[in-house]
Amino acid sequence: MKGILVIADGLGGRPTDVCGKTCLEAASTPVLDELARRGAVGLVDPIGPGVRPGSDTAHLSLLGYDPRKIYTGRGVFECLGIGMDVREGDVCFRANFATVETRDEGFVVTDRRAGRIESGQGELAEALNRIELESVPGMSFEFRASTQHRGALLLRGEGLSRYVTENDPHKTDRQALRFAALPGHEKEAGRTASALNELVERGHEALSRHPVNVERIRDGKLPANFVLARGAADCPRIPSVESIYDVRGAVIAGGALYRGVALACGMTSIDVPGATGGLDTDLRAKAAAAVKALESFDFVFVHVKGTDNAGHDQDAEAKTAFIERIDRELFGSLLEAIDEEKTHLAFTGDHTTPIDFGDHTVEPVPVLFAGPNVCTDDCATFGERVAGRGGLGRWSGRVLPMLLGYCNWAPKFGS
Amino acid sequence: MKGILVIADGLGGRPTDVCGKTCLEAASTPVLDELARRGAVGLVDPIGPGVRPGSDTAHLSLLGYDPRKIYTGRGVFECLGIGMDVREGDVCFRANFATVETRDEGFVVTDRRAGRIESGQGELAEALNRIELESVPGMSFEFRASTQHRGALLLRGEGLSRYVTENDPHKTDRQALRFAALPGHEKEAGRTASALNELVERGHEALSRHPVNVERIRDGKLPANFVLARGAADCPRIPSVESIYDVRGAVIAGGALYRGVALACGMTSIDVPGATGGLDTDLRAKAAAAVKALESFDFVFVHVKGTDNAGHDQDAEAKTAFIERIDRELFGSLLEAIDEEKTHLAFTGDHTTPIDFGDHTVEPVPVLFAGPNVCTDDCATFGERVAGRGGLGRWSGRVLPMLLGYCNWAPKFGS
Repeated sequence: MKGILVIADGLGGRPTDVCGKTCLEAASTPVLDELARRGAVGLVDPIGPGVRPGSDTAHLSLLGYDPRKIYTGRGVFECLGIGMDVREGDVCFRANFATVETRDEGFVVTDRRAGRIESGQGELAEALNRIELESVPGMSFEFRASTQHRGALLLRGEGLSRYVTENDPHKTDRQALRFAALPGHEKEAGRTASALNELVERGHEALSRHPVNVERIRDGKLPANFVLARGAADCPRIPSVESIYDVRGAVIAGGALYRGVALACGMTSIDVPGATGGLDTDLRAKAAAAVKALESFDFVFVHVKGTDNAGHDQDAEAKTAFIERIDRELFGSLLEAIDEEKTHLAFTGDHTTPIDFGDHTVEPVPVLFAGPNVCTDDCATFGERVAGRGGLGRWSGRVLPMLLGYCNWAPKFGS
Repeated sequence: MKGILVIADGLGGRPTDVCGKTCLEAASTPVLDELARRGAVGLVDPIGPGVRPGSDTAHLSLLGYDPRKIYTGRGVFECLGIGMDVREGDVCFRANFATVETRDEGFVVTDRRAGRIESGQGELAEALNRIELESVPGMSFEFRASTQHRGALLLRGEGLSRYVTENDPHKTDRQALRFAALPGHEKEAGRTASALNELVERGHEALSRHPVNVERIRDGKLPANFVLARGAADCPRIPSVESIYDVRGAVIAGGALYRGVALACGMTSIDVPGATGGLDTDLRAKAAAAVKALESFDFVFVHVKGTDNAGHDQDAEAKTAFIERIDRELFGSLLEAIDEEKTHLAFTGDHTTPIDFGDHTVEPVPVLFAGPNVCTDDCATFGERVAGRGGLGRWSGRVLPMLLGYCNWAPKFGS
């Protein structure tokens, strides 16, 4: 048996005013409809009924873990997702380059994304990483740049704590905040906040005079002269999928966060050229890589992000078109290549991102299972409302354990 | 009001290649169909979505308890189920007679079931129970035989621990293992392992020279000359059904395990001649006993095991035929005798045992409720797929609490 789990980020929707249908309902999806006919559909609350999911927590829950118990923050998945070596005791952040002006009141953020910087980030990161922190002896750090302004920051040393505030004001023309221990965590988190404040201040000095930024200013671009960090997290204790099910899984995801979550669960990341984590991603390449991965792995988790991007952009046309591409280019390619007698498929989203709202909402998302051990229902299309009448009913999270269960890989609890 | 809960072990299935239907769907079940018409159906994950249930854990969950919190192992239910007096601090095992040969490397198991011994087990148990353990002062034990090679073992004394390995190699022509403390439990479990090793070794001496075995060897049968023990468990802290609902329940089950689980939950066991825990059980006698039990008890839990036996044997015909017998002989008899205006019925399985797989799988199982307080849905048959369209939806465990709730016996949580 082999298993394929596809999660389309923000797949779920609400009916739009234009056609009274959700984007998934409006999209022409002949391949998914055929899978629905052969398999069964239902509704899944990514975390639980009435819980509005984040992408990280929703993925943990769909992969079979209880985020209420193990989630410590987003930063650790960002660090893992861009290939950093995270160890127990480290504290991790989602971080990015920003542009600040130094005014009387301090550092004022004029662009939270440093003009969406497209080159030179690696050199800037190197300059940052040459700083040796003086206020907190024995503490080291690493900043790593990923795409555009984005990156991740990892602190390492004795006595770190994730219980610190962030320095991102989340709006422009606001002062960058100072890191501080969260209330009640003053004793344990003081050193961490000091280290972060020193890092950010000395980082500003180093970045400001860096040739990359000197050139940017000369070219009329915003300098990437400041680091904003948020999503403090330490290493969650997650038993690996392999330790639970005795099977090996691979992840194919353009977005660092999703790779990071899967890596934290013990999967192996497979790089796919053209997998961008955006609407322009190469879905056929992802499908081909998934099929190839099944030669060496028992299951593969494929993440596609474009649905969520279009949802956040409140662009119904783009979301609908991307779902049609998922149908044709991802599932169409998969079905051409897999042995359907020996493969189970699961397809769902990690949350709902309705066009009219442009952010995650609490609704359950439709889910589809197909494969030789799946009892069919009488649903012949795939969408939010048909899933509500599906033969699988409604439950919370745990889509991967169900998929592995259909593959007969679930361990018995009890005897 | 009165309540009847029937659990058919391993009731759930997957469609078989023969007819594209599950055994429950293929079976002719006019009585259950009539109950489905009068009542409502749904899907229940015995423990939770994507959790592959053991029989013991699934029963605890269906009876309203959280096995993740209270389950310590199977042994205690086996001891309770064959009538042993289990007290706090005792450590219990599922145990059985086996045949070993003494070779250079130690005791080699040549038959894990001692030729499915059919007589003399009580005398052999007596011989075992005369042993006084010397390696661990103050520790006593009791071995009790049940059916064929099966039995249970209970240790009593100060400082016992359930964190020990088992001695069953689970295959023939393998050396019987030595009991040992589980890793991390060396301090607390060392005495328990020593007691078990002494008991097994001295037991072998006593059993080998016992007249029952001398005679078995003379008759060309395998001697029951060794004890294998597994499923170490201590007394779980389970509040009784009566303490929660203020109603009294009885259990009718041929299999010791199920009686044991129900006894641990505070029910009273009713012996029914002809209830074998197998495919040959007397279902009419169980129905009659259930009806009689309702004269003295508020509810009765009837367990039937044959469905699971046929599933493990991968015998679709036998499973289908047994389901038809449940329909006719158990439910048919019940409906003839009960006052339907004052009785609620629930019927489900504790897990799925598909014919093609021959062991428990993760799928939810169909569940049916009928009685005066049950809101009907539009389902008119009972099976896996119709239950997916049922009016009750899908949830996890807690079938007994729902049944008692329909009877208006559930305590209010909050005010």
